Amino acid sequence: MKLATLRNGRPDGHLVIVSKDLTRFASAGRIASNLQAALDDWERCAPILRAVSDQLNNGEIAGMPLDPREALAPLPRAYQWIDGSGYMVHLDRVRSLKGSRDEELQDERPLMYQGGSDSFVAPMAPIVVPEDGLAVDFEAEVVVVTGHVPMRPNREQASAAIRLIGICNDVSLRRLVLNDLQNGFGFFHAKPATSFAPIFVTPDELGENWKDNRLHLKVRVHVNNSLYGQPNAGKDMRFDFADLIVAAAQTRELGVGTIIGSGTVANAHDEILPLKHDGVGFGCIAEARTAEKSKIGKARTPFLALGDIVRINAVDDDNRSVFGSIEQAVKLLAPGG
Amino acid sequence: MKLATLRNGRPDGHLVIVSKDLTRFASAGRIASNLQAALDDWERCAPILRAVSDQLNNGEIAGMPLDPREALAPLPRAYQWIDGSGYMVHLDRVRSLKGSRDEELQDERPLMYQGGSDSFVAPMAPIVVPEDGLAVDFEAEVVVVTGHVPMRPNREQASAAIRLIGICNDVSLRRLVLNDLQNGFGFFHAKPATSFAPIFVTPDELGENWKDNRLHLKVRVHVNNSLYGQPNAGKDMRFDFADLIVAAAQTRELGVGTIIGSGTVANAHDEILPLKHDGVGFGCIAEARTAEKSKIGKARTPFLALGDIVRINAVDDDNRSVFGSIEQAVKLLAPGG
Repeated sequence: MKLATLRNGRPDGHLVIVSKDLTRFASAGRIASNLQAALDDWERCAPILRAVSDQLNNGEIAGMPLDPREALAPLPRAYQWIDGSGYMVHLDRVRSLKGSRDEELQDERPLMYQGGSDSFVAPMAPIVVPEDGLAVDFEAEVVVVTGHVPMRPNREQASAAIRLIGICNDVSLRRLVLNDLQNGFGFFHAKPATSFAPIFVTPDELGENWKDNRLHLKVRVHVNNSLYGQPNAGKDMRFDFADLIVAAAQTRELGVGTIIGSGTVANAHDEILPLKHDGVGFGCIAEARTAEKSKIGKARTPFLALGDIVRINAVDDDNRSVFGSIEQAVKLLAPGG
Repeated sequence: MKLATLRNGRPDGHLVIVSKDLTRFASAGRIASNLQAALDDWERCAPILRAVSDQLNNGEIAGMPLDPREALAPLPRAYQWIDGSGYMVHLDRVRSLKGSRDEELQDERPLMYQGGSDSFVAPMAPIVVPEDGLAVDFEAEVVVVTGHVPMRPNREQASAAIRLIGICNDVSLRRLVLNDLQNGFGFFHAKPATSFAPIFVTPDELGENWKDNRLHLKVRVHVNNSLYGQPNAGKDMRFDFADLIVAAAQTRELGVGTIIGSGTVANAHDEILPLKHDGVGFGCIAEARTAEKSKIGKARTPFLALGDIVRINAVDDDNRSVFGSIEQAVKLLAPGG
């Protein structure tokens, strides 16, 4: 089934069940007050939500037309957001930028950082930056939402805890990355609020596109209608989501509704921008720039400017959007907030 | 007023109002379903909670006896936990341990890291470690809970957003700190779940003990009944809570219920353990050990061993506990969780 959260003036929004083709929704308000509440009581809620989903998809319930501009992030706020680094290609490409010190460590176990989860950004809301010149970048990622995970789980427990799958834009302010990492406490100011596509889906809904704890779909990124990348999230993922969950829970349990990110989706290739027809490209600009430096001696693709629009979609073999679209303009913070 | 959350089998527990002397409570269940819900609707809830608090303290409501073993963390889970570094003495003492690279940076603006907030530990629950030998340490800290804070607030907005004050034990696994910081992504595995004293209080409740955005109380730490420290949280706090909030919101807004930590409370002195009568001592073992290295050439105070008990209290001039006690034994994770 497919779930979304619509704006209703409350911080956690209104949980709805969405049709497979993303055109219609039915309210889940009588089943759970919001998505976190449904996850907290998943054994009871999931079968009821699924029954409504079936009725919506077979036409027994007409539903209402879905306006993606009314969608919030599916979890508008969450108790935990941990971003991993599943794709070594991404780390290899940006490593020089970030000044990482221990390359060998990163091949043995995934890096991860604790992200802010108090106020996620809606799929079509702007990326608000407090000043110009911060080198704004997107990072196209896959995420999973977990149930409770005990400390030191095995891979089977980790895999079984995956409740929902989605995609996000882990917005990064590249000019602040070095300061964050040099101060020694890790990412903070360089990682402002993360944005999410409107729909989270259950693993079964994805059929063959979810296997081996990986999402086997292209994640397609456009900037102002230019294709920047369409790497396949199922390829070159060194650490799958079971690995990431196991790693995250080495010294802690994970609460219900924890979101785990894949890191920027990246496939190995030697392309640079602009992409040739059906090129694979990049899930973030930093990678495109380092590829340019290595191939033509100079980074030429600029970071996002004010007014630029980034669009991120995961698409199936028929180019249909699976989670709905992230579509965000970069905007300057208005005086006085 | 003083607020606590009691165990009721649900993840967010049951909000109660506690008498000034911490002996009695009245349910707040008819005002708000839990503390986060009260914070989400603070303008409406705070006056009603305060009226019940007044009735409880003047005897109009008898209340029920408070059993601190039934208390959860006041926010058993939160949408954001940001730990700052307000006390430069702490950073100065442990800097060599952590291998921080840019000393000048730290004097100009406070360091901070994003902590895990999905499952806080109850005041009297054990510190559960997955294996022995991780160099378990406590960190005695002051925290504030905020309302909504816009991006790039001024100090007045930051100060006005402080809703509640409390204390916590930011448990640290010192053996994992270096790995976390060397990998470049910051604290993660070295910072397992944080524990909180049972009571959060409003700023007005503290009278003269809350001023200049600082808590003017001794934070007293015992390990197995030996006094390890009683630094005054109002002294030597270079960055006050308004500074910490302003710094945290440089590239993001802060959602309602964000918890901001002071970093380990630390006062300047040249003592080592064991403390002489009324010594000031330390808010964590790492500081005690570096003081020993510098003064006697060798660290002799061990980190916490399995079975050790750490007790943390903030006390007023009459030695009365203001937030209730954190009292935790170190315990090994049971096989199978």
